[in-house]
Amino acid sequence: MTTRARATILLVLAALLFAAAATEDRRRETSFGRCLQGCDEDQPSYERARCMQECREQQQQRRREHDKHDRRGEGPSSVGDEDGEQESRGRPYVFGRRSFRRVVRTEQGFVKLLSPFHEASKLLRGLKDYRVAVLEANPRSFVVPTHTDAHCICYVAQGEGVVAMIESGEKRSYAIRQGDIFVAPAGTINYLANTDGQKKLIVAKILHTISVPGKLGFFFGGGGRNPESFLSSFSKRVQTAAFKTSEEKLGKLFGRQEKGVIIQASEEQLRELRRHASEGSHGSQWPLPPFGESRGPFNLLEQRPRIANQHGRLYVADARNFRDLAEHDIRVNFVNITAGSMNAPFYNTRSVKIAYVLAGEGEAEIVCPHLSSRRGGSEHGKGKWQEEEESEGKHEEEEEVGQGYETVRARLSPGMAFVVPLGHPIVAVASHDSNLQIVCFDVHAENNDRVYLAGPNSVLKKLDAPAKELAFAASAREVDEVLDAQDEADFVPGPEESGGRHKGDERHHHRRGRGEEAVETLLRMAAGAV
Amino acid sequence: MTTRARATILLVLAALLFAAAATEDRRRETSFGRCLQGCDEDQPSYERARCMQECREQQQQRRREHDKHDRRGEGPSSVGDEDGEQESRGRPYVFGRRSFRRVVRTEQGFVKLLSPFHEASKLLRGLKDYRVAVLEANPRSFVVPTHTDAHCICYVAQGEGVVAMIESGEKRSYAIRQGDIFVAPAGTINYLANTDGQKKLIVAKILHTISVPGKLGFFFGGGGRNPESFLSSFSKRVQTAAFKTSEEKLGKLFGRQEKGVIIQASEEQLRELRRHASEGSHGSQWPLPPFGESRGPFNLLEQRPRIANQHGRLYVADARNFRDLAEHDIRVNFVNITAGSMNAPFYNTRSVKIAYVLAGEGEAEIVCPHLSSRRGGSEHGKGKWQEEEESEGKHEEEEEVGQGYETVRARLSPGMAFVVPLGHPIVAVASHDSNLQIVCFDVHAENNDRVYLAGPNSVLKKLDAPAKELAFAASAREVDEVLDAQDEADFVPGPEESGGRHKGDERHHHRRGRGEEAVETLLRMAAGAV
Amino acid sequence: MTTRARATILLVLAALLFAAAATEDRRRETSFGRCLQGCDEDQPSYERARCMQECREQQQQRRREHDKHDRRGEGPSSVGDEDGEQESRGRPYVFGRRSFRRVVRTEQGFVKLLSPFHEASKLLRGLKDYRVAVLEANPRSFVVPTHTDAHCICYVAQGEGVVAMIESGEKRSYAIRQGDIFVAPAGTINYLANTDGQKKLIVAKILHTISVPGKLGFFFGGGGRNPESFLSSFSKRVQTAAFKTSEEKLGKLFGRQEKGVIIQASEEQLRELRRHASEGSHGSQWPLPPFGESRGPFNLLEQRPRIANQHGRLYVADARNFRDLAEHDIRVNFVNITAGSMNAPFYNTRSVKIAYVLAGEGEAEIVCPHLSSRRGGSEHGKGKWQEEEESEGKHEEEEEVGQGYETVRARLSPGMAFVVPLGHPIVAVASHDSNLQIVCFDVHAENNDRVYLAGPNSVLKKLDAPAKELAFAASAREVDEVLDAQDEADFVPGPEESGGRHKGDERHHHRRGRGEEAVETLLRMAAGAV
Repeated sequence: MTTRARATILLVLAALLFAAAATEDRRRETSFGRCLQGCDEDQPSYERARCMQECREQQQQRRREHDKHDRRGEGPSSVGDEDGEQESRGRPYVFGRRSFRRVVRTEQGFVKLLSPFHEASKLLRGLKDYRVAVLEANPRSFVVPTHTDAHCICYVAQGEGVVAMIESGEKRSYAIRQGDIFVAPAGTINYLANTDGQKKLIVAKILHTISVPGKLGFFFGGGGRNPESFLSSFSKRVQTAAFKTSEEKLGKLFGRQEKGVIIQASEEQLRELRRHASEGSHGSQWPLPPFGESRGPFNLLEQRPRIANQHGRLYVADARNFRDLAEHDIRVNFVNITAGSMNAPFYNTRSVKIAYVLAGEGEAEIVCPHLSSRRGGSEHGKGKWQEEEESEGKHEEEEEVGQGYETVRARLSPGMAFVVPLGHPIVAVASHDSNLQIVCFDVHAENNDRVYLAGPNSVLKKLDAPAKELAFAASAREVDEVLDAQDEADFVPGPEESGGRHKGDERHHHRRGRGEEAVETLLRMAAGAV
Repeated sequence: MTTRARATILLVLAALLFAAAATEDRRRETSFGRCLQGCDEDQPSYERARCMQECREQQQQRRREHDKHDRRGEGPSSVGDEDGEQESRGRPYVFGRRSFRRVVRTEQGFVKLLSPFHEASKLLRGLKDYRVAVLEANPRSFVVPTHTDAHCICYVAQGEGVVAMIESGEKRSYAIRQGDIFVAPAGTINYLANTDGQKKLIVAKILHTISVPGKLGFFFGGGGRNPESFLSSFSKRVQTAAFKTSEEKLGKLFGRQEKGVIIQASEEQLRELRRHASEGSHGSQWPLPPFGESRGPFNLLEQRPRIANQHGRLYVADARNFRDLAEHDIRVNFVNITAGSMNAPFYNTRSVKIAYVLAGEGEAEIVCPHLSSRRGGSEHGKGKWQEEEESEGKHEEEEEVGQGYETVRARLSPGMAFVVPLGHPIVAVASHDSNLQIVCFDVHAENNDRVYLAGPNSVLKKLDAPAKELAFAASAREVDEVLDAQDEADFVPGPEESGGRHKGDERHHHRRGRGEEAVETLLRMAAGAV
Repeated sequence: MTTRARATILLVLAALLFAAAATEDRRRETSFGRCLQGCDEDQPSYERARCMQECREQQQQRRREHDKHDRRGEGPSSVGDEDGEQESRGRPYVFGRRSFRRVVRTEQGFVKLLSPFHEASKLLRGLKDYRVAVLEANPRSFVVPTHTDAHCICYVAQGEGVVAMIESGEKRSYAIRQGDIFVAPAGTINYLANTDGQKKLIVAKILHTISVPGKLGFFFGGGGRNPESFLSSFSKRVQTAAFKTSEEKLGKLFGRQEKGVIIQASEEQLRELRRHASEGSHGSQWPLPPFGESRGPFNLLEQRPRIANQHGRLYVADARNFRDLAEHDIRVNFVNITAGSMNAPFYNTRSVKIAYVLAGEGEAEIVCPHLSSRRGGSEHGKGKWQEEEESEGKHEEEEEVGQGYETVRARLSPGMAFVVPLGHPIVAVASHDSNLQIVCFDVHAENNDRVYLAGPNSVLKKLDAPAKELAFAASAREVDEVLDAQDEADFVPGPEESGGRHKGDERHHHRRGRGEEAVETLLRMAAGAV
């Protein structure tokens, strides 16, 4: 090979690498720009500030990783970047407000959708059939009739209104209010109205796709150009034959509505919708209808809390108290952690928790063994899983047993979502300023066991004495001394409170969730009646 | 960099691009050649003509797309091409005759298999466990004993014969004829004979794979070199030990049959097979056997049609009337749409329909929201889902709500298959010359609801007045006027008939499907008896 | 283009190819080095010799394939290599000892894990939720408390000890010994002790992942730095709040144990663990507890064998005799094939068999139609599935019916695993020197049928006469003559025995499996009692 030929080859390769690196730089900066752009869409200014801060941190994080890769000589391209995982690096279980996309937006409200779980991380492949969505509708607005190819489990996070569903040829219409859960199975045409004149109606939903995993199809069944009615997608010939009417009449009917998916309703229309709803079965929860028959919405906050102490409350809806959930194997929890308190660490044996923060601030810690291999070198050399072929792309797949965990830490604030896989211990801590309120959709609810790790019902207390000695390399007495110290169960004082202040000092009273107060009296009456 | 070096780089890149483009051109032309070649295999000349026409259209379509891509400056390579999706571009739900491959072919018949759904489109991932196959066996032929690693739900589309199955050590042998449904669970050795002297035996099948998703393994259990017996695949040592006989004898037995999977049978052999079959339980359908016990084939056309008017008929077999279907959660329908008529638009809430056209000509329209993003720019800018990274490969994955649908339109003719995902509205129209006959395998049958959109049982009529007003931006009266116009249900006059001719003018009488006439009398007798 | 430019292009391409080839060579040799390295880790010298021999064979195989590819002009890179499939080329169903990785290793024992099935071959995608693991614990050792995100079905292959599980807040502790099956559902904290002073405790397991397909997370719940306790992964603030104790005390408790997952236990500790275990329900198997309630371990070898003759024995545990298996749809078999004997060829209609060789030597033959296309050209040109696009990457996906099978042949020795997909005929032959003992975890147990192909219960005998004639192109009498020759059922004399020696010549008595003798007497007593 001549010197010239060799030089040429080197030049060609250099040029290609240079071009790739430049593209990468540009991509990184562009993401930042897009990120900032996204923030402008959020309304209140204080939220916009937080969002922009998040963008900046993310950008810095991206640069740090870029530099690290360069130092390791691996080039600028990495797994996360290719998979679109850069945002969730190191914490694939946490989804900030910017992980949601607005798929519907009108003057009267919006629907935002969380990006598919399996795109966020391979560790979330088990949730690939599920999506999270949030609807926010202005006072006196109407959400046009729709059906989707997914089952929809809905929680009314705020406000009140009316929901109507047409199932098996029957229209049922129910009043809904904060705390209500209702289920719209796939293919059920449904529509909603915010009948209140002041408050927004906010509904948080889990969509369980049953057609294409993780992919949603929305069909708008009314008339209109926006949203386009699926009826007007048939050819004109078929439309006129189907409805046995003239093309002109159809054009008029299907072309008129053009204000979008969420539109303004008149006072009279809302009154009429409310009037029909009052005919629904809502309100008489206790006498159970024949099995299989839906009884409309189920108010979670009207239930006696499954757990309640000064540090927090847990309300549970599952197949046993709300039959509509049975077919979907989902449990819905409402958790209200008192300001300054936290839950005792626990894990679920079978359920995967999809949590959405409704109110308050706080933080979460989730312990995950799958992520530990990402940390690079482990201090304990022995026992490490040795990959035959070292490939960057397989890092997430590595297995390494007993060599540590990565703790996913996240600040929590309203509008964030997070996932807690089964077996993974979790603690959520409420800030000292506000109760932390979370709605949890627990997928794979059946046969689940909630295993506590601290407090009087800690599973560790069940170990027999020699197991304690061996597992802790300490005397059973020493182990018990530590395990017995915590005398509160389920919800306990949070980090800074636990230094002795916790007893008698009830400074942080449990602040009931919005709506809880209202039903407290009802509950007491019901308890008396039973 | 010297000018020469730069020139060299440009030349290298140009050469590579040129080579790639040439390959693409060649590939495109080669596909056309293969396509035409495939047509020669079909027997009747009029079908060959149609097939060749399809090839030509496809070829033109490919060129158009190629040109379009070039104009858009994206180069010749595109997603669809890479995924082998070029055929189904824009209509992934429709499968022409050429989407089938003949996996068995002998002088006495063939088996053709539809390519895997999930390879056709990501939107069909939900069907990845299912395959469609069609068997066509000449008069007086025999299909050798086979078992597969898939459950097989079979519909006898034409002809008559005998099927034998060996399950749990019991051989059961049944006479079959047009309209019969029978189920051969995975691992069941089964064989078939066309006992008729004149007509071909045609069986359309759904194969539900339970081992490798979408992948079929056929095991031929008789002797022979063609098909090779799986028994002779064991080593000679194992064979002689297993059968405790000499290698010579085994060689003779396993090496003799070499005429293929479908072979000629003698008149006497067929008589003998028929004689055994008459001992089967077939014929006495009404007294139900104890639950779980198969009662052999079930004749769909012998049932009272679920729907019947002058415009069409629908026959249904599901877990309730044919228990063999219960384990497989599949419903089998036979639809016969009168010439010039169509079904009223409807959608299924849970079932995915896999349809195979048996006879007649017509067209179908399927409304799909998932495809709309492919159309490129949408007229309504607001509310569009904004992908962070614009990548050609993800187009199918985009989500965009309320911004329209793509209507999949397809001409229907015998031998075509199409899929209707759940929630997707569908209309099938029979041509004016022929009844359109379709067999449908509806996967995920349980809890399904068929939701009609037009006619007296239209779901839209159930909307309460304010919902009609808001959804259509019209007065409820105006909406009702349109919805009430269609007074026929389920099957209605087709496009060109509906201009006033529809009443009284019964020019297009319902032509009963082949076999329907024969059972009409029986039905009436049965009705009298009940 | 100038000559020089063209020459330059050629040189560039040549250089790139050269570089690629060199990398490939290096990769191949490196794999060999790694392979040998892996062997040093195995203890006994005779095993090391075998392991190194395996490495050498594999290396030669790799070279052969490399050369073959070169001859075929396909270049050095191939599908298998890219997918890490090189090891399983041609026999994706067989896993040598080196397919296991040690994920835990201490002075007191190890846990080894088979690589994920779906990574070994696309044909094993159906098993992607399952993993195989083997635990080996030294005499007088303790396995620290753990829970995983997978269901664990365990078979005690050797030794005896104690297992404790904490489920629904209840600790249950059982004595276990060879032949015992026990189930630890996902999330159940469990720990083990080898209470014997001499023998190792060996447990073979199937792990059914329910969170991330095929991916395991192990959580160690005791204290300690090695294995790291998941409890100490919470932030210090959260830990002190959760346990309401000082950071110092916690640090001491969680930081002390550092000897790994399997540690030494004192005589006294073991006695104490054994004492608790005696309180378990183990031992009284026959009076069934109320449905759903676990009754602890179930001894497979204590059961009356489902099949037993001089050539072999089959013990079966399934949902009917051991309810803990019901929820997991798994059947556990213990097969003991007498030296020189084999099983009559059979296939399962629904179950996929995951087999692990416990003792003895032998060989297996599995007949597979999916692999046949790999063999390249088929002798029977007709009927072959013609792929539209010839792509190396899709070879495994090709379909070709009736054109033959690939027989997967494997020498069997302790520590190997193999898979038998449903419908695939299998024969396992014991060497003349040793009984072959295998534990099988049959996944998808329900409604399975074991279909025998030779012997008195051969399914081929059920074919009616004309089917025999047609399928074998021979007279029914000729077919019957061969099928009737084998008068032994289920287990039969192996290859070299079957030449006349088989009758009367009982030279190879059935050697009972370790542990079988011990329970023989019990069995006979029980039989008398019933």
